[in-house]
Amino acid sequence: MLQPLEISDPGFEADFTLVLRAKREAAADVDQAVAAIIADVETRGDRAVIDWTARFDHQHLNVATLRIAPAEIARARSLCGAKALEALELAARRITDFHQRQRPADLSYADEHGVTLGYRWTALAAVGLYVPGGSAAYPSSVLMNALPAKVAGVPRIVMAVPTPEGRTNPLVLAAAELAGISEIYRIGGAQAIAALACGTATIAPVDKIVGPGNAYVAAAKRRVFGRVGIDMIAGPSEVLIVADRTNDPDWIAVDLLAQAEHDEAAQSILITDDRAFADTVAAKVTQHLATLPRREIARKSWERQGCIIVVETLDQAVPLIDRVAPEHLQLAIGNAAAFAARVRNAGAIFLGSLTPEALGDYVAGPNHVLPTSRSARFSSGLGVLDFLKRTTVVGCSPAGLSALGPAAIALAEAEGLDAHARSVAVRLNRART
Amino acid sequence: MLQPLEISDPGFEADFTLVLRAKREAAADVDQAVAAIIADVETRGDRAVIDWTARFDHQHLNVATLRIAPAEIARARSLCGAKALEALELAARRITDFHQRQRPADLSYADEHGVTLGYRWTALAAVGLYVPGGSAAYPSSVLMNALPAKVAGVPRIVMAVPTPEGRTNPLVLAAAELAGISEIYRIGGAQAIAALACGTATIAPVDKIVGPGNAYVAAAKRRVFGRVGIDMIAGPSEVLIVADRTNDPDWIAVDLLAQAEHDEAAQSILITDDRAFADTVAAKVTQHLATLPRREIARKSWERQGCIIVVETLDQAVPLIDRVAPEHLQLAIGNAAAFAARVRNAGAIFLGSLTPEALGDYVAGPNHVLPTSRSARFSSGLGVLDFLKRTTVVGCSPAGLSALGPAAIALAEAEGLDAHARSVAVRLNRART
Repeated sequence: MLQPLEISDPGFEADFTLVLRAKREAAADVDQAVAAIIADVETRGDRAVIDWTARFDHQHLNVATLRIAPAEIARARSLCGAKALEALELAARRITDFHQRQRPADLSYADEHGVTLGYRWTALAAVGLYVPGGSAAYPSSVLMNALPAKVAGVPRIVMAVPTPEGRTNPLVLAAAELAGISEIYRIGGAQAIAALACGTATIAPVDKIVGPGNAYVAAAKRRVFGRVGIDMIAGPSEVLIVADRTNDPDWIAVDLLAQAEHDEAAQSILITDDRAFADTVAAKVTQHLATLPRREIARKSWERQGCIIVVETLDQAVPLIDRVAPEHLQLAIGNAAAFAARVRNAGAIFLGSLTPEALGDYVAGPNHVLPTSRSARFSSGLGVLDFLKRTTVVGCSPAGLSALGPAAIALAEAEGLDAHARSVAVRLNRART
Repeated sequence: MLQPLEISDPGFEADFTLVLRAKREAAADVDQAVAAIIADVETRGDRAVIDWTARFDHQHLNVATLRIAPAEIARARSLCGAKALEALELAARRITDFHQRQRPADLSYADEHGVTLGYRWTALAAVGLYVPGGSAAYPSSVLMNALPAKVAGVPRIVMAVPTPEGRTNPLVLAAAELAGISEIYRIGGAQAIAALACGTATIAPVDKIVGPGNAYVAAAKRRVFGRVGIDMIAGPSEVLIVADRTNDPDWIAVDLLAQAEHDEAAQSILITDDRAFADTVAAKVTQHLATLPRREIARKSWERQGCIIVVETLDQAVPLIDRVAPEHLQLAIGNAAAFAARVRNAGAIFLGSLTPEALGDYVAGPNHVLPTSRSARFSSGLGVLDFLKRTTVVGCSPAGLSALGPAAIALAEAEGLDAHARSVAVRLNRART
């Protein structure tokens, strides 16, 4: 059973630092392999994509079968259970509603000299959505990645999903259809990322690639970054739960396991102000592990990455949370909203004992693509802004040029950029005559 | 003299594709060297930073002199000309004013089941600003990088600026002081990026690093991305000017050179609907080159990267602009605002003949840190949002849990994540009793 760390222990700071620094991901060094795959796709296009798919996914495609036919997408729905489809539709409605509230406003105003200033937001023209195949193929992730792009107004959303040995996941295709995606390719790995970034004869290039993937996908996204935009490089998932002893320890134990079952590298942390509660939760985790289908994964995650911290007062949890900067922060305490306001770093916050993180994974509305591995210190979950870009606009009046021109010239001269100065001076001279 | 490309020419598409694909940057492969420097700073901290600074900057520092003393920052002002200082102050006021209008609002609402939903924005806790030394040390860039962070409310802004052979740029320090930066280290290159990202005994780590730099800095930023946030990897600067024949060709020629004088890899493109105007501008460029102090750089940029395109109607310019996705778009045409509305991809737009891009570099107000190398297709200039992050918040009511719980369970089961389903089910069972 997991032994809690106590903040009052003199060794706590050293132990906590170890928790923060633990390298949770096996850094598979696939970068050279990925570079070769990208170069090959750049050179040989579709042919390269088809060859790498045969090699990695044991699936033999040709240019006619790279893309999943509309009929196959339409058929997918009939292979899904009614309950799951209904749930997916509820999720899609709620995700759309939440994200519609994120649309930013344009800005336009004139300053005191009549200079017009502002910016406008425009949608990206084309976005690629990567969806992993196999056991990590999550229809909920299709909605979470595609719907913000849809809400942003992206006219072309393309999906790449590997179908090893020809196996497709009907609920993934149904989710794509629900999100309005009709351009889907049955390819994966670095070859799919390369095809989306560079384009081939069959697949037109996109402007940005989003979505999770394995080490090859992550390395490929890192490599094509700059040529196209990418979302974050997703790390293993994590939850930090703050719970007082008024909670049912059983609920908290299951919440910790809901994170742990994702991945052996996932991390579940509990902070509580009650040592007895901590021990009861730890015991309940052990009990639930016995009956959990994904117990092998969850046990490894809990034993290797799991952590219970006992604080003297819940106030002490705030700086610890900010240092962890958890992807998910569950506040199973009284007055959770007031406590949440004191936290700087967290991807998403779940308030109160009735808000398990799993609600947010599926149907609450906010995005479940969130910053991992302490990156909530500097980044946000996926949203509509990730599919928009801002163009600033300036229009100078004659009075504005007279007012601002001399300062621009002074700074250009100070920086030794004479053509800059001259481009203002030639106009200023005219305006003065 | 530069020969224009004519859109009516059968070879135009091939020529234009070459312009788009031209590799403008010498890809100095410094990645292995940079990896070694970062690893050294991680291991040896200050000592490594001091050693690499001695080697690259020929400057011998110790832990006491790594940081520029407050007295030295204060003294810098007295070494600057009054005109440049005044211009800097005007620029700072206008940049601050424009960026204050970018502060996003928080969101909070309850849905029909009483589920509270929303998000809030918080500032990053610490940001590092890299400022290049030597000839590319631009005080205007200090303001453009620091003031958005200041407006966002970042409590700690740290600057790193190399001072090779001990040479500092007083106007850079004055700009830092004006922006409220008091923590400045006289270090540069990959060792500075590593120190900011990993921290040393003297330099506390930051959460995000922004600012331009040479190949070492760019490679180091790419390597520490994930551990800290970074802004874009800046490429060479570019302008695309659309001008009709009513313009003074002299003005447009100087505008093209204002971009070209930045860097041999900078790119200036003119699109016009008048062949005679195109030729006159090309001749004027040649004339101005003769008297321009930075003519060596500007000539190489213009001859290698410069381009004049003659279209039949200005309408034809729109799709060309979107393919170039220029960092700067100058519209020296009638009804420029209406034309601008038809463009999807541009970092910043300058409306009308009286708005040379140089105004935007210094005093207009919008940021001059803008997406280069076609990345305006998917990214925006620097702004207040780059120094904020969004945390979503959900608080579920009993009615909300009853309404949403079953769908969450259905999706968790469909994805094979039983602990997820269980974490909702245990609560739903209680709510029902």
